[in-house]
Amino acid sequence: MNENYPKPLEELIRQFSQLPGIGRKTAARLAIYITKMNRNNALDFSMAIENAKNEIQFCKNCFNISENDTCNICADLKRDNSTICVVEDFTDIFSIEKTGEYHGMYHVLGGLISPLEGKNPGDLTISVLLKRLTTRIKELIMAINPNSEGEVTMLYISKMLKDRDIKVTYLARGIPMGTNLEYLDEATLGKALEGRREI
Amino acid sequence: MNENYPKPLEELIRQFSQLPGIGRKTAARLAIYITKMNRNNALDFSMAIENAKNEIQFCKNCFNISENDTCNICADLKRDNSTICVVEDFTDIFSIEKTGEYHGMYHVLGGLISPLEGKNPGDLTISVLLKRLTTRIKELIMAINPNSEGEVTMLYISKMLKDRDIKVTYLARGIPMGTNLEYLDEATLGKALEGRREI
Repeated sequence: MNENYPKPLEELIRQFSQLPGIGRKTAARLAIYITKMNRNNALDFSMAIENAKNEIQFCKNCFNISENDTCNICADLKRDNSTICVVEDFTDIFSIEKTGEYHGMYHVLGGLISPLEGKNPGDLTISVLLKRLTTRIKELIMAINPNSEGEVTMLYISKMLKDRDIKVTYLARGIPMGTNLEYLDEATLGKALEGRREI
Repeated sequence: MNENYPKPLEELIRQFSQLPGIGRKTAARLAIYITKMNRNNALDFSMAIENAKNEIQFCKNCFNISENDTCNICADLKRDNSTICVVEDFTDIFSIEKTGEYHGMYHVLGGLISPLEGKNPGDLTISVLLKRLTTRIKELIMAINPNSEGEVTMLYISKMLKDRDIKVTYLARGIPMGTNLEYLDEATLGKALEGRREI
């Protein structure tokens, strides 16, 4: 007998280990758990993967995930369609929705400009975004992560709009709620000082 | 829009989060990764779960996992069929096989006796083990984890065999290879002293 598990189990371990953050040991633990699972539960799991892949698509308008070709937000006539909030990933939409503070539309870029990783503006959904910017749009909010790729991406998009009558804003930089100043990095503290407001 | 992801994605997150050691956040990360995966790769994953469930069974003899109704070890005529090594789980078989030190047969109990968790002797494969103990069997090696459930289980099985002419052994207790004595618990050190051997 060799030291490997039966082939179907090895294959399932291989599948699990290609998921982000899952090493060979964890993959083996998960795959073995599935082997021991009640048969129907295992088939439900398998079906859930297929369904997620078959039934989830990306909104043709804003590239949010959706069960239809237009997402719930784009289809919602009660939302403010004069504002578009630009995000890197659809998961950011869910974070912003949870705040309950925003009632406009979204646009998912599908990444950030990163020459190092070979991500060029053409790889993002920027051209679709530009087509969406009809005269109805008054403000573009850049809800992009404040790292170097994010800064480049924001700069790139705002440059393309400099002759257009659209306000381009970005999220306020400052100290996060509940933070202890002592542990805050200088860059954030600097931004917080720079952006200080009257009480 | 509510704060949940589309239903098929929520279902996949639910499926992932029932796996051991996977919380809601990790489950969401894995499920989202699958949503973004190439379609064929996702279907391969789903198929791997089905195959693992459909093609893997448990050996009718020793309860090792197997692609057939008799596992490779039980089917191997070159192995010593006068010794049975009793283990809690089939994963233990793979650990022991890796040592290359054992060439006999195995028996997977499928757990340990644990009144607290409601695991009684009848829930294990002990009755099948007793039927396997023909006069051919000379030794039963208890390769069981040295915790309280393990001790109870070993005691239970060895009591059932006290009138039989079968040698019942258990794995040596002692200091693990490469350990620093300083960090060793007293119980292990005590066992190692008690079982000391001449150089």
